Amino acid sequence: MSDKVVAVAGATGLVGSQILRTLEERNFPVKNIKMLASERSKGKTMTFKGEEIPCEVLGEDSFKGVDIALFSCGGGTSKKFAPHAAKDGCVVVDNSSAWRMDPKVPLIVPEVNPHDVEWNEGIIANPNCSTIQMVVVLQPLHKAAKVKRVVVSTYQAVSGAGVSALEEMEQHTRAMLDGGEPVCNNFPYPIAFNCIPQIPGSDAFEDGNGYTSEEMKMVNETKKIMGDDSVLVTATTVRVPVHTGHSESVNVETEEKLTADQAREILAAAPGVIVKDDPAKQLYPMALDCHGKGDTFVGRIREDVSHPSALDMWIVSDNLLKGAAYNAVQIAELL
Amino acid sequence: MSDKVVAVAGATGLVGSQILRTLEERNFPVKNIKMLASERSKGKTMTFKGEEIPCEVLGEDSFKGVDIALFSCGGGTSKKFAPHAAKDGCVVVDNSSAWRMDPKVPLIVPEVNPHDVEWNEGIIANPNCSTIQMVVVLQPLHKAAKVKRVVVSTYQAVSGAGVSALEEMEQHTRAMLDGGEPVCNNFPYPIAFNCIPQIPGSDAFEDGNGYTSEEMKMVNETKKIMGDDSVLVTATTVRVPVHTGHSESVNVETEEKLTADQAREILAAAPGVIVKDDPAKQLYPMALDCHGKGDTFVGRIREDVSHPSALDMWIVSDNLLKGAAYNAVQIAELL
Repeated sequence: MSDKVVAVAGATGLVGSQILRTLEERNFPVKNIKMLASERSKGKTMTFKGEEIPCEVLGEDSFKGVDIALFSCGGGTSKKFAPHAAKDGCVVVDNSSAWRMDPKVPLIVPEVNPHDVEWNEGIIANPNCSTIQMVVVLQPLHKAAKVKRVVVSTYQAVSGAGVSALEEMEQHTRAMLDGGEPVCNNFPYPIAFNCIPQIPGSDAFEDGNGYTSEEMKMVNETKKIMGDDSVLVTATTVRVPVHTGHSESVNVETEEKLTADQAREILAAAPGVIVKDDPAKQLYPMALDCHGKGDTFVGRIREDVSHPSALDMWIVSDNLLKGAAYNAVQIAELL
Repeated sequence: MSDKVVAVAGATGLVGSQILRTLEERNFPVKNIKMLASERSKGKTMTFKGEEIPCEVLGEDSFKGVDIALFSCGGGTSKKFAPHAAKDGCVVVDNSSAWRMDPKVPLIVPEVNPHDVEWNEGIIANPNCSTIQMVVVLQPLHKAAKVKRVVVSTYQAVSGAGVSALEEMEQHTRAMLDGGEPVCNNFPYPIAFNCIPQIPGSDAFEDGNGYTSEEMKMVNETKKIMGDDSVLVTATTVRVPVHTGHSESVNVETEEKLTADQAREILAAAPGVIVKDDPAKQLYPMALDCHGKGDTFVGRIREDVSHPSALDMWIVSDNLLKGAAYNAVQIAELL
């Protein structure tokens, strides 16, 4: 791969800065890098490989001469600017939900469907964080035994909602420990010492079927990434007071029975998956352990006592890395 | 009901003191009350209806003349002393797991199987906290449409592990906010800003099938309470950084299809259940809201998009009340 001109749109955000670090760590062949951000970040600089680079305001003309643009700046901005980038010959890897279900846009998890990159028309979508870590584990099981139905409940970290949400959790936590008043801006209710079964915010329930949009992402994106509409998913997505690291309790029904040992063997050989599963030693994945790691961790694998051909498992990954920045850079590497 | 001589064994613990408060609040007909505790609590007094009552050390002879003993002092103590109490003509309502699966011991949730109290031989078991709040909701659905299989993931509060666990969560939280070192005694790993898929402690995995004992309680106790071995359950039980209030993500497959509206109607009429379910107004149950309430709250009720005849829902209750003290006092009221 020859060196590329790369743009990072939303460079100052939580995911944007993780993208910069991931490009450095994976030694992505960067010829030149542009930091793009909103008007608000004018005057800021971002560091890349020791160099301070000033942010430019994202605009329609930002992408001339750019090979790859990694977008992490919300759905509205992406809807507006990604087509301009594509028109200028740039390939956009977009982290928002704006393009994911567009039939002309591939939705990529490199361990699962790298070949789908080929039919891109200038925009490639990075899936939802909670979906990515699940399909990385489901796909090898699907190949071996055909996944029929998945019942997933998530335990999602606050960093998925951005820097100000993390600050809000700290304010809520200190207030509740020391008798103050939690102030809610990012969350509808206090997130400290609580579990909120609603992701994202006030528009979460717009589908009208009782599911949140986060839950319907897991239902729909899974099928598109795995390229199989017969994979049925139901999801309950819940915000928990954790900084970083999404955990998922996943029940997987397969057409052919897999034993827990067979599943562990299959997953141990799967790309991007690390099996951490030794109950006798109290070893299983946890949010606190996955910080800064690009892999997806799976444990608590066991044969479901309520079903002849199903497994229960516990899947954890860093939502800012495999759930966002790391997966986006992996997609850029495929290009 | 004539006034009773009541003993509370484990009166100084978290559940014991909730039992005292519940007896007061429900105006249980107490003629006389004995506070029983371990050697460690010698000299302590507990307040009941404004009166300071000294703790006596629990012994084999503590139950002469006692009508009802509410035990909340761990499985080992219960195994040792409950038979002595029963021999002396006292009825024990035991909060530990020691007797729950004993075929001679009824396992009671008053809204579900009050009639089973009749065949007690001096010991009645109070079910596991996470099971109680689930069966209160399952039973009315079972009557209407026959529950076939349940997939449940829990979000369990720290108070379920006792006073010292709550103190440990505070220490972990402050340490992680302010750069200190979390010290683990009650939990295998830091519980602040984390989710631990293991309940209870180091003996959690003794069943050898990959499930924890907490999970197998939900599998087995559900059948016994509902009086129907055909109700299949798989569970993943997870400790989360919440003080009080267990939340549960529950997928319920029924023989006959129920719409979400039908389920809401059935549950609104069910004893001990409060339906709090208005997504458009961001209304659903949460741990922070259920403190101090004896009811079980259910929301996020929706028809499962992955199955022709299943529902997803979110069940929350105060684990120290309906999950323990309140249910135990309700059982005592049946006697």
